[in-house]
Amino acid sequence: MGKELRIPSATIERIAFYSRPLEDLLVKGVRVISSDKFADMCKVNPAQIRKDLSYFGEFGVRGVGYDVRDLLTAIKKILVSDREWKLALVGLGNLGMALLRHENFLKRGYRFVAAFDVDPRRIGRRFARELVVHHVARLNEVSRELGVTIGVIATPSSQAQAVSDLLVSAGVKAILNFSPIHVRKPESCLVENVDFTVNLDNLAYHLTRTAAL
Amino acid sequence: MGKELRIPSATIERIAFYSRPLEDLLVKGVRVISSDKFADMCKVNPAQIRKDLSYFGEFGVRGVGYDVRDLLTAIKKILVSDREWKLALVGLGNLGMALLRHENFLKRGYRFVAAFDVDPRRIGRRFARELVVHHVARLNEVSRELGVTIGVIATPSSQAQAVSDLLVSAGVKAILNFSPIHVRKPESCLVENVDFTVNLDNLAYHLTRTAAL
Repeated sequence: MGKELRIPSATIERIAFYSRPLEDLLVKGVRVISSDKFADMCKVNPAQIRKDLSYFGEFGVRGVGYDVRDLLTAIKKILVSDREWKLALVGLGNLGMALLRHENFLKRGYRFVAAFDVDPRRIGRRFARELVVHHVARLNEVSRELGVTIGVIATPSSQAQAVSDLLVSAGVKAILNFSPIHVRKPESCLVENVDFTVNLDNLAYHLTRTAAL
Repeated sequence: MGKELRIPSATIERIAFYSRPLEDLLVKGVRVISSDKFADMCKVNPAQIRKDLSYFGEFGVRGVGYDVRDLLTAIKKILVSDREWKLALVGLGNLGMALLRHENFLKRGYRFVAAFDVDPRRIGRRFARELVVHHVARLNEVSRELGVTIGVIATPSSQAQAVSDLLVSAGVKAILNFSPIHVRKPESCLVENVDFTVNLDNLAYHLTRTAAL
């Protein structure tokens, strides 16, 4: 992928991020937000927001700002986040357990329907009515049976490539990779690598340059 | 912060991200990479990379590409990632444990020097020679004593705001917040909110729009 898509991944990620402060505003009963204030909340500049939204239509009123509810509805439509996605988790160490219990996944339409590990103490453990931990040897069979679309890798880095290959051969179309290595994958599968240290680098950069220290 | 900084946060995060594929290339012995190939690896377009780097000088040779080692060295210099940062972790549930054991933090100069929780079974537990879990009531005292600069919040969302306030009053200058709520904080403190569902939204968006499904 990449080249056939006209809208940059970074734009989609920013748009997904814009929905978070909008949800906070909606809860607080704010109906309209100036583009400057909204940009501040999103930690980008107002022009970036305009540019990102311009791919999808016209939003906001000059000199007034954005209608909170309208913009949130539009973003949800862009992201089709009313659909439910079926996720398989591989690796039930601390990170995997934290992901299973994460408060926001299900709220946003991401449901873990399968979980895999190699540790005999974890296999057979049941988390929700429909979520049982299987041996990773059954990944192909179980993922196909349950219609898994997105695989989540939470294994040590030494296992990540093998798990990624397994997921791809099980017909999984997208991978969220939490292991610290970047996995190789065929063109037909999307991969997002999550790297917490990028956020720390950003904090460290700004700490170094502010008088704060 | 925000307005007094000329370089956008998003640029810094992308630049931090660019260093990851460069490290892979260096390990593989690749000395020069074309800007198209490098952009593909970074999942942005070549113009974005040029724009981001242009804040810091001139990089790359037209028609040739980037020298892998030179660019990596330059990025490390930009990010001052040769410095070590002292982190305090609050919340030793599954996510907190996963962060403590994360393979990349120390490698990139982020050292947990303090950990806090409220669960009596966790308090007093020792992880490394110098890392002991304290009750969160001692956060102020211990953080100041150890010179903590960055606080990492890995508590349930119900505790996140109180923990953030504690960190700020302990003189911590930056917060990496893994809880699903956005914390309010004074101007003097930087906050990065980590939201895994943004990555999932990006995958879901592209899955919906590719013929892959």
